[in-house]
Amino acid sequence: MERPRHQGMAKNTYMRWRLPLVCLLWEVAMIVLFGVFVRFGPEADAHWEEEKREMNLTSDIENDFYFRYPSFQDVHVMIFVGFGFLMMFLKRYGFGAVGFNFLLAAFGIQWALLMQGWFHSFKNGKILIGVENLINADFCVGSVCIAFGAILGKTSPIQLLIMTLFQVTLFAVNEYILLNLLHVKDAGGSMTIHTFGAYFGLVVTRILYRPNLEQSKDKQGSVYHSDLFAMIGTLYLWMYWPSFNSAISEHGDAQHRAAINTYCSLAACVLTTMAFSSMLQKKGKLDMVHIQNATLAGGVAVGTSAEMMLTPYGSLIVGFICGIVSTVGYVYLTPFLESRLHIQDTCGIHNLHAMPGLIGGIVGAITAAAATEDVYGKEGFIKAFDFTGAYRTRTPSVQGGFQAAGILVSVLMALAGGTLVGAILKLPLWGDPAAENCFEDDIYWEVPEEEESDAYHMHNPDKPASP
Amino acid sequence: MERPRHQGMAKNTYMRWRLPLVCLLWEVAMIVLFGVFVRFGPEADAHWEEEKREMNLTSDIENDFYFRYPSFQDVHVMIFVGFGFLMMFLKRYGFGAVGFNFLLAAFGIQWALLMQGWFHSFKNGKILIGVENLINADFCVGSVCIAFGAILGKTSPIQLLIMTLFQVTLFAVNEYILLNLLHVKDAGGSMTIHTFGAYFGLVVTRILYRPNLEQSKDKQGSVYHSDLFAMIGTLYLWMYWPSFNSAISEHGDAQHRAAINTYCSLAACVLTTMAFSSMLQKKGKLDMVHIQNATLAGGVAVGTSAEMMLTPYGSLIVGFICGIVSTVGYVYLTPFLESRLHIQDTCGIHNLHAMPGLIGGIVGAITAAAATEDVYGKEGFIKAFDFTGAYRTRTPSVQGGFQAAGILVSVLMALAGGTLVGAILKLPLWGDPAAENCFEDDIYWEVPEEEESDAYHMHNPDKPASP
Amino acid sequence: MERPRHQGMAKNTYMRWRLPLVCLLWEVAMIVLFGVFVRFGPEADAHWEEEKREMNLTSDIENDFYFRYPSFQDVHVMIFVGFGFLMMFLKRYGFGAVGFNFLLAAFGIQWALLMQGWFHSFKNGKILIGVENLINADFCVGSVCIAFGAILGKTSPIQLLIMTLFQVTLFAVNEYILLNLLHVKDAGGSMTIHTFGAYFGLVVTRILYRPNLEQSKDKQGSVYHSDLFAMIGTLYLWMYWPSFNSAISEHGDAQHRAAINTYCSLAACVLTTMAFSSMLQKKGKLDMVHIQNATLAGGVAVGTSAEMMLTPYGSLIVGFICGIVSTVGYVYLTPFLESRLHIQDTCGIHNLHAMPGLIGGIVGAITAAAATEDVYGKEGFIKAFDFTGAYRTRTPSVQGGFQAAGILVSVLMALAGGTLVGAILKLPLWGDPAAENCFEDDIYWEVPEEEESDAYHMHNPDKPASP
Repeated sequence: MERPRHQGMAKNTYMRWRLPLVCLLWEVAMIVLFGVFVRFGPEADAHWEEEKREMNLTSDIENDFYFRYPSFQDVHVMIFVGFGFLMMFLKRYGFGAVGFNFLLAAFGIQWALLMQGWFHSFKNGKILIGVENLINADFCVGSVCIAFGAILGKTSPIQLLIMTLFQVTLFAVNEYILLNLLHVKDAGGSMTIHTFGAYFGLVVTRILYRPNLEQSKDKQGSVYHSDLFAMIGTLYLWMYWPSFNSAISEHGDAQHRAAINTYCSLAACVLTTMAFSSMLQKKGKLDMVHIQNATLAGGVAVGTSAEMMLTPYGSLIVGFICGIVSTVGYVYLTPFLESRLHIQDTCGIHNLHAMPGLIGGIVGAITAAAATEDVYGKEGFIKAFDFTGAYRTRTPSVQGGFQAAGILVSVLMALAGGTLVGAILKLPLWGDPAAENCFEDDIYWEVPEEEESDAYHMHNPDKPASP
Repeated sequence: MERPRHQGMAKNTYMRWRLPLVCLLWEVAMIVLFGVFVRFGPEADAHWEEEKREMNLTSDIENDFYFRYPSFQDVHVMIFVGFGFLMMFLKRYGFGAVGFNFLLAAFGIQWALLMQGWFHSFKNGKILIGVENLINADFCVGSVCIAFGAILGKTSPIQLLIMTLFQVTLFAVNEYILLNLLHVKDAGGSMTIHTFGAYFGLVVTRILYRPNLEQSKDKQGSVYHSDLFAMIGTLYLWMYWPSFNSAISEHGDAQHRAAINTYCSLAACVLTTMAFSSMLQKKGKLDMVHIQNATLAGGVAVGTSAEMMLTPYGSLIVGFICGIVSTVGYVYLTPFLESRLHIQDTCGIHNLHAMPGLIGGIVGAITAAAATEDVYGKEGFIKAFDFTGAYRTRTPSVQGGFQAAGILVSVLMALAGGTLVGAILKLPLWGDPAAENCFEDDIYWEVPEEEESDAYHMHNPDKPASP
Repeated sequence: MERPRHQGMAKNTYMRWRLPLVCLLWEVAMIVLFGVFVRFGPEADAHWEEEKREMNLTSDIENDFYFRYPSFQDVHVMIFVGFGFLMMFLKRYGFGAVGFNFLLAAFGIQWALLMQGWFHSFKNGKILIGVENLINADFCVGSVCIAFGAILGKTSPIQLLIMTLFQVTLFAVNEYILLNLLHVKDAGGSMTIHTFGAYFGLVVTRILYRPNLEQSKDKQGSVYHSDLFAMIGTLYLWMYWPSFNSAISEHGDAQHRAAINTYCSLAACVLTTMAFSSMLQKKGKLDMVHIQNATLAGGVAVGTSAEMMLTPYGSLIVGFICGIVSTVGYVYLTPFLESRLHIQDTCGIHNLHAMPGLIGGIVGAITAAAATEDVYGKEGFIKAFDFTGAYRTRTPSVQGGFQAAGILVSVLMALAGGTLVGAILKLPLWGDPAAENCFEDDIYWEVPEEEESDAYHMHNPDKPASP
């Protein structure tokens, strides 16, 4: 039953001292940096009563907490249950999917609070945090979860923690460039989260290319129950995506509108995914891989434009297209990327995040460029695109141009950052598994022994099938 | 391993062109109709700032989004995870349960936005939507999910899409008759959602009666894990039902009250379900079928009266009774309906939705008839029953009469509509499975092959048990 | 297949009349008591319009429902899905874990509404309830779920209902002493919920000590899928814990702050749990038991102080420590408690609730003692500790002393109460299972037969492994 520590390419996957060291080091650093920098923002601080008077608020209900906390919790579920369970489709990698996602996200949100805080909430030497920071930290980690999808099953937890450290850093820089320098709108993160996260992950998995990965081919599929667990992830992502895209929009109509647009886009996306899943399979049967993933592309693709006046039918059209693009991608593009470009994309993030993310950026640019005072109202127009201060003279078409530039910057940042991080992760120090041990929990996890009389009900393919 | 396409009664279940065609046709129709009719309502439109001034609102927090969005998300979870997972109890129909529910609900909410919009949110030639419309669309689809429970495992996805199209249409008509013509109260939909949906589904399954269904008897039960998946559905329905019944109630006390009443009714229902489940089984053991379903009857049965002054103890009494009625129904009535009336009700919706729905309608009629200005306060009385305009002179006892009429109308509409739709679904065009292939995923789904060494850990009963 | 009713120690586990009797008796008592005592509070009553004028509120949004309902639903999910699924890790006790948790919680919330109502919401002979009462009832039941964790798999449902009756009663008394007599702060219940619940459960399981429990040792572990189900429980507890600790805090900054502190503490806790899980295992592999439980200790340990100015880095430090303490407890302390002190703690609640609960009480006492007007602001200081009326002259250090006293009272109440209840449960009347039948569903539940051809895919270890 005991598997030798060194086997195949004789990789050392022993985690006993390395993993604890990295975890403790990372966490001690967080405590020190939080101690120096992080404090409660005015709406979470005990001085709120005074603040309230200064801001001329009449009721506690106007605390930002009540505008955003329900959406925050939905986003939180998407990151931890949504991504964690979606990746559980592999037959023997359930612990790794949900457990490593848990680990990297728990670290990532702390580091993101700092990185994003320095860029966006820094005041008098302190980072002042509130519920919006928590949402943004979850968003940032979302992009790491996406990249994790590409390398799922092929890396050690140490590699994931290192990738998280770097990716969160680069995410914050890219986000700063887009939101502050280019003054781009991207409330649901088509560009900053999905495009960036996906291309980052694709480059990393390209650099970590494993020529002998077919040695673990038998473990790359799903079993009946693992597909059902994955549907928990899918559905929570699908249901809560309207909260994702509206979570940090402006109070009032913008949040309301973002939720409606996303709801519409996602609904349309389900229909075209089902249609193409059946159409592209010889026997006309539906494929769980498509249902689990491509149904979500509609949420990705309105990430930039959801808070704009995309209109419900505009959202339907975007969802319609993305269900098709994403499903076609799973059928034709993923095998091509693997065989020709050596991009081994475990979860197919190219189809769920990269392409829909690009589409989302483009839809956002077009929607912004097409905006008129007539459609938005005079005040609504200025509020929607924040055409104030230095940007008061910016026109919709210029805004559209900057939006398009934002896509480009995100892709370039992802390619450069992914290359750097991929190179670091390739160093033979981090305890990644040998090719024949990929997609298998018992390298890094204590996997329960099946009981004697249950020996036939096996999960571990290494056990002999009969006594 | 490959199963022949035509077998048994030689049914053609090949979906390759038919399913994509229906999905794409339906969705293109939605896009066109949304393009012509659907726009953002005033609270989701970018003109909100002007609207706010007109409505004399001082804060963005008074946007309806903040009153209803958390409840909307709870309802959304109930429709997609609640119903989807509850129906996963069948050992070999997990993909179909959650996947087809996903498909029909995603289509249904779009069509419901239109149908309900034309009746309730039509202004100057446009349907103006907001968060309340999203909730109502989910509600409407809930009634389709209920009907799906009766025919679960016995229909093709095309049949489900056709049923959804018709049922949503008829739901909207019935709802219009009740809410607008009869001026009936039914915030949680005991009549419009549960009674209507259940009798609709029961008639459909009666018309689709399969005399040879015992050929797939072995697949009609659960296995250990499928029962655990089903409990996810049960618990989310149970926990979020207070949100369901309060989601579209009047702001303030009515929403608050509806949540409390529902919470109480559901709690009592669990106790009597457990009691009768044990009592009616020879060995005194609890039956998962009852726990998964009858515990929810208390939520159904306060659907009409939850926003009224039913009082917490009144709710306990309703829940107490419904747990008993529903459990007894599962033990005695379901077998009777199947053997004598040829109503094959896969999920037992007669016990969970039909009977508790009727009880809910009656409780609502009585509670309305018993209302007094003393109990509600002068303003509260008028507000609770909307006794304004044309209805300013309506008395509680008259209201009770109309409520009772609402039950009758719902039942009649369901019977007539179900007959029509059942007849359409009986046409031999839609690719439904042969009797021996019912309750089995691999007719319509790619089901993962179990790996070689895992051959003993089988889910597919067609595989030989030993090599 | 049929197992004899009397076996082993010849225990009579026949539930047919006893369980229904207790359920119905309990529920009838609830109806009578609710009928006499429970009414809607002013914010849920139809007289709300008048109330609003009296309280000088301008908008329905200021109804407490909108401040607390989203948090209530999160807490609700924690109690029913969180605890229910977390305890599903046992390979053959999934029905019992989720089903009995459902039963005891559904009864407990009703009884808690009464008990807590008499102490805290009693006015003119009536208990007036609103959303805050629902949250408090869920909290109270949370402490019963914790105690259930210690005796999981070893008791009959009747014993659980009896324990719930007594424990809820004692919880309410203890809570009254702490909150009203000692005027202690404990919003997230480190003392009242966790410390009390855990020591209560530990004493009960000590008294119910089973010397022959190793007879069911083979069923005390997990299987692969049961561990994945348990992760659903873990993640929902982890994600929604910020809602738990902030649910009944003061409106505004206190709720906001409590959520942030808890979020931080939990994040840090994940890292140290992973570190020590790997470090303490010879092969350096991660153990699912730790990930499922110890990651939550950070939420427990800020239960008292979360609404205070603990600060984000303070929270990180608390989470850091508790991940370590809890994981070390699982590795070293649990075996010691079982072998030396005869405390058989199925879920290890000593590590997840008792120790972190104590730490939480202590952290709360220190944080209170260290409070200054400078940090809180003049108004914030008074508001945070409610230093008004009879307590207007209390100083922070005195408050710290009372907080410490609160810990002691909670432990003593738990020990005394647990002893009493343990003694009652030891009476040979309640149908508990024999030692060799512990941790097995088919004593109290109808467990589905595996289908013929699926005979090898067995869950029931009593079935022969081959035909």
